Amino acid sequence: MTPSTLERQLAFLREIDRLKSVVRLSPLIDGSRRENSAEHSWHLAMYALVLAEHAAGTVDVQRVVKMLLIHDIVEIDAGDVPFHVPATHAGQDERERLAAERLFGLLPEAQAAEFRELWFEFEAAESDDAKFAKALDRFQPMLHNAATDGGTWVECAVTLEQVTTRCRPPIERGAPALWEAAAGMAEAHYRKHSPQD
Amino acid sequence: MTPSTLERQLAFLREIDRLKSVVRLSPLIDGSRRENSAEHSWHLAMYALVLAEHAAGTVDVQRVVKMLLIHDIVEIDAGDVPFHVPATHAGQDERERLAAERLFGLLPEAQAAEFRELWFEFEAAESDDAKFAKALDRFQPMLHNAATDGGTWVECAVTLEQVTTRCRPPIERGAPALWEAAAGMAEAHYRKHSPQD
Ligand SMILES: [Ca+2]
Repeated sequence: MTPSTLERQLAFLREIDRLKSVVRLSPLIDGSRRENSAEHSWHLAMYALVLAEHAAGTVDVQRVVKMLLIHDIVEIDAGDVPFHVPATHAGQDERERLAAERLFGLLPEAQAAEFRELWFEFEAAESDDAKFAKALDRFQPMLHNAATDGGTWVECAVTLEQVTTRCRPPIERGAPALWEAAAGMAEAHYRKHSPQD
Repeated sequence: MTPSTLERQLAFLREIDRLKSVVRLSPLIDGSRRENSAEHSWHLAMYALVLAEHAAGTVDVQRVVKMLLIHDIVEIDAGDVPFHVPATHAGQDERERLAAERLFGLLPEAQAAEFRELWFEFEAAESDDAKFAKALDRFQPMLHNAATDGGTWVECAVTLEQVTTRCRPPIERGAPALWEAAAGMAEAHYRKHSPQD
């Protein structure tokens, strides 16, 4: 007997519970532990709802929310690769593509296709919605680093120049005002902790 | 100097990071630990996206998603009260109302008002959107209990009759097909673990 629509949907919803066990390098703001990718996805969806007016282009906020809710689900199979650890990035695109096939493929076909396309759109970062979503995904960890006396900036021993090179383009392209705020936070951190002090 | 719109928005987004530290009684599906309210909110938003076709009324899915993303934020101040521990429920409505005032009040006024109203609508559970959102909030823990050999049903020593009395009305009202599925899971659990065996 083939599983019913509802059975396939519930199988998917059970499977993605595993995103709660994918641990990112980023700390919580209180420094008590690292963030997991499920709660990170919730937080980013809230960022989209609250910060939509700062998007560079004309965005459909509800679509951005949806994109951010699903953007990390591939990590259940592919794992999280820390942004500031480039050595881990090789082969990740292919691992994530396979993960998207398998995980979204648990759903009834029409939903599977919709989620796959939305995820590809996010990854491509070309539409206004995707550019804003990507900007938020890069912006949120900067807030956490600034709030925890350095977070992954310290842990990965990155310089202000590296932070700027890596974070400015994706954030500025999707939300210029957020890059301005983030740059201010990063500069304040590095000023306080510069090697010359 | 009064804080700018962006500063108020970022203060709110920093503050709600604390929802990741509000721990619910419900287990993760792999049983490894309890679920927190932030990742729970992410999971419920995914439930809304995937299960919308099973809603009893005509729902605006994007509004239901938004409602579920914010529905537990009050727990930052008010704490989570376990559904199957009625003794903890006294005074919770008032604690949550005060929490909604304070937490959403961190935002610029128009956004604060919008989130407060959406949260009140969820709590009232009268609109079709809110009925569906509430149904999902009651349905998801049943899946986790069924998947973990009882979860909070065992931990709180509730009977099948209590589960039915407490869960059937809110779930059936918002999503009848989901109550049918949940009842099947609960019955299977209690059949396997009935005292007579
Ligand atoms: Ca709750």
